Amino acid sequence: MLKDYVKMIRPDSEFIKTKLQEARAELSGYQMKLKEAKLPVMVIFEGWGAAGKGSVMGKVIKNIDPRFFQVATMDTAPTDDERRRPFLYRYIVEIPEAGKFKFFDTCWMKEVTDGLCHGDMSEKTYASRIRSINTIERQLTDNGYLVMKFFFHISKKEQSSRLDALQEDKNTRWRVSEDDLWQNRHYDECLDIFDRYLEDTNRSTAPWYIIDAKNSKWAELQVTEYLNQGIDTALKNSSLAVPILQNTFRMKQMPLLKDIPLDKTISDDEYRTRLKELQGELDDLHNEIYRKKIPVIICYEGWDAAGKGGNIKRITGALDPRGYIVHPIASPEPHEKARHYLWRFWNRLPKTGHVAIFDRTWYGRVMVERLEGFCSENDWQRAYNEINEFEKELTDWGAVVIKFWVQIDSDTQLARFTDRQNTPEKQWKITDEDWRNREKWDLYEQAINEMLFKTNTSFAPWYVLESVDKHYARIKALEIVVDRLKKACRKVK
Amino acid sequence: MLKDYVKMIRPDSEFIKTKLQEARAELSGYQMKLKEAKLPVMVIFEGWGAAGKGSVMGKVIKNIDPRFFQVATMDTAPTDDERRRPFLYRYIVEIPEAGKFKFFDTCWMKEVTDGLCHGDMSEKTYASRIRSINTIERQLTDNGYLVMKFFFHISKKEQSSRLDALQEDKNTRWRVSEDDLWQNRHYDECLDIFDRYLEDTNRSTAPWYIIDAKNSKWAELQVTEYLNQGIDTALKNSSLAVPILQNTFRMKQMPLLKDIPLDKTISDDEYRTRLKELQGELDDLHNEIYRKKIPVIICYEGWDAAGKGGNIKRITGALDPRGYIVHPIASPEPHEKARHYLWRFWNRLPKTGHVAIFDRTWYGRVMVERLEGFCSENDWQRAYNEINEFEKELTDWGAVVIKFWVQIDSDTQLARFTDRQNTPEKQWKITDEDWRNREKWDLYEQAINEMLFKTNTSFAPWYVLESVDKHYARIKALEIVVDRLKKACRKVK
Repeated sequence: MLKDYVKMIRPDSEFIKTKLQEARAELSGYQMKLKEAKLPVMVIFEGWGAAGKGSVMGKVIKNIDPRFFQVATMDTAPTDDERRRPFLYRYIVEIPEAGKFKFFDTCWMKEVTDGLCHGDMSEKTYASRIRSINTIERQLTDNGYLVMKFFFHISKKEQSSRLDALQEDKNTRWRVSEDDLWQNRHYDECLDIFDRYLEDTNRSTAPWYIIDAKNSKWAELQVTEYLNQGIDTALKNSSLAVPILQNTFRMKQMPLLKDIPLDKTISDDEYRTRLKELQGELDDLHNEIYRKKIPVIICYEGWDAAGKGGNIKRITGALDPRGYIVHPIASPEPHEKARHYLWRFWNRLPKTGHVAIFDRTWYGRVMVERLEGFCSENDWQRAYNEINEFEKELTDWGAVVIKFWVQIDSDTQLARFTDRQNTPEKQWKITDEDWRNREKWDLYEQAINEMLFKTNTSFAPWYVLESVDKHYARIKALEIVVDRLKKACRKVK
Repeated sequence: MLKDYVKMIRPDSEFIKTKLQEARAELSGYQMKLKEAKLPVMVIFEGWGAAGKGSVMGKVIKNIDPRFFQVATMDTAPTDDERRRPFLYRYIVEIPEAGKFKFFDTCWMKEVTDGLCHGDMSEKTYASRIRSINTIERQLTDNGYLVMKFFFHISKKEQSSRLDALQEDKNTRWRVSEDDLWQNRHYDECLDIFDRYLEDTNRSTAPWYIIDAKNSKWAELQVTEYLNQGIDTALKNSSLAVPILQNTFRMKQMPLLKDIPLDKTISDDEYRTRLKELQGELDDLHNEIYRKKIPVIICYEGWDAAGKGGNIKRITGALDPRGYIVHPIASPEPHEKARHYLWRFWNRLPKTGHVAIFDRTWYGRVMVERLEGFCSENDWQRAYNEINEFEKELTDWGAVVIKFWVQIDSDTQLARFTDRQNTPEKQWKITDEDWRNREKWDLYEQAINEMLFKTNTSFAPWYVLESVDKHYARIKALEIVVDRLKKACRKVK
């Protein structure tokens, strides 16, 4: 791409000046339209050191009210905390909310190409990074984001003379990094690597725009015009339906809910004995996963009154409070709703060695959001694959992902609802909404069967907890967690 | 892709039966909706020999009224005539019209992978084919086509036992080709090649769906469900705006129309002498390009009454009538309007060694169609790049593409219009529409400047013919044609 790149013929400066005035005014005019259309715009600046990314960005944002944009400076290496999260984490937490711009001063490209340039990234890791990046860029655009990617291009000679000029002046000397100088000395190798990256991530839904950055005003004009064009196109697509991709992940067979026997029980004695044993084991394992830096993500989904809360308590009862967190998931807050639906879960991922327990999860997308019409049909149909991709990202990172479906039958739910209603200290646990949801039992059951069938991947399988006998369900959950953590610990020395 | 492909868990035959009934009914129900929404659907069946493509296709089309679908059997090698056209030609002439299905029994994939399997395609040609295919698939989907690509997958063992069974029965023996047997003997090499091709052409806008084809009913269910899903998604996108890609072709500088001096003239004597000389040269060159199998495409665009007709006559006057054709381009016929706007031009491409002259061209998209609102803004903005890609396809094939802009000023047009109006034998040449278009001179000039600027590529540049003195313009056109053909002939020995 970069090697085939043909510079546009640069118009004379008078023409650039006139066009810039037009383009700036147009960009300025888009602010309110963006807000009305709730369009999130992610603008990524990548390119050669000293190519002028910062100065052009400074000019472009002058046309936008500060309430409508933010800048994310990702130019520095990941912090220690960020290194303990998945590769994409620090970028995804920064994605813009609906109706606003976010300007990225470098993004996931730089981290990957830096790794290749300095030889500390293997080919295998590179391939996995490219997969992650193409997946997230597709997920973002599929979910209504406009992703504009600019690569600022200058020649070796131009870079060299800019670096010289900056170094000569003691006021600008600090702006020249060791890395910039290294890059100029290894310009041709870097060019190969940049070219490869651009090729590998150039998709018509989020294409690259190469900016001839020799002249700053001309670069600003190119960026502003491409940006305007991109916004114009995106604004025309108010509600886009996106092709549903084939599931390409290895799946495990899953029974229909109605075929799962719910008569499993455990005696009180055995319950107490096993609980103690298993909690002891889990306690030890929590230490071990902490030392071995294994992240653990435990997901709970299930019918209302199925016994999720009590089940979670028996897990956390065995854990060191400094090493776990329980995330109760309710309907999204406004700032969460304004972003990709997985954003609030990305944001809550544990660090390596920690345990995150989700009381309800991202599967809300294909249950309540589907059935209550909070998202479009195309949105939830696409979500199965997006969720599988998300969980693949987590397990590739090294996480243990355990997904529980806590199962009861409709009669059991009715009995528990009635009990809650009639017991003063339990009344807070039952709401009108619970009764309303109960009326849709059959629709939910259908949606849940589809969900279990389409997301029961080999790397993040579902476990059904038969919870008519809550004790039985708790022991089964503990056994599964202990078993999965043991296996994970065995793999890491 | 194929290697990572994980077969879905095949449901039991009762389930398949029920689901098939639902899916068939759904497909059947889509016919009229497709027609109303004017959605063209291109369904491509590729896969292993004896994988059952034909039989599944036979079942799928049973759900569709014959008025709404056609089958294109592309399973055979290109004919001699097709070999004298660009690689994509024989497929593109078959694309469906709006509101209808076209089922392809193999398509451009087979020709490419066959070439690789049998070792008669170079890596360079392969790379160029992949570029062509990705470009045309993107152009089709960008222009509102639904492109569904199915790959029928069976194991080596399964293929082998199917071929054995077919061969044993003398009624089915004919269905086993030498190629099928060869493929089974070289299954693993073929798998590598198929896998590579699928990877190279898998895009989220036109993704691959791999079909587990071991069981025929199950295969039919998969195809029908994916097809329904694809149609459902496409129907939701009534008017889609598509991102405008960066132009990546090498461009030549182009002056604004107003800056082109129009006072160039030639004396009558010189005109007669040069005309004779040049037509003689062109006559010889026509022979040479015929022998050297060079295809030639000459495009005329220009203002009404600029003198295109007379100019073309001076070119054709020197050509052997058996070796050229003039295509006068008016507004598209209904069956042309129902397809991709470049389809009627693909359809009119010359064979190698022949000359096609277009009196008006595909540039109508960015002139009259733009200004009269016959296409959306997004359509014509995208068209510059699509046209450049189209012309790149032609020049890569080996064609000489010569584009003339026949230029006059507004006063000259007025004088010629008035003359036509007042001269009985010329009155047929002037219509009310000509006068109406004349009123939009400034808008047209702006659109033409943008067109010349954005499509003046190094491989298919524009030539302005100053045609206030028509004699001058004719001699200039002849000189350019002679010069370009000479250069092209010199390159081919």
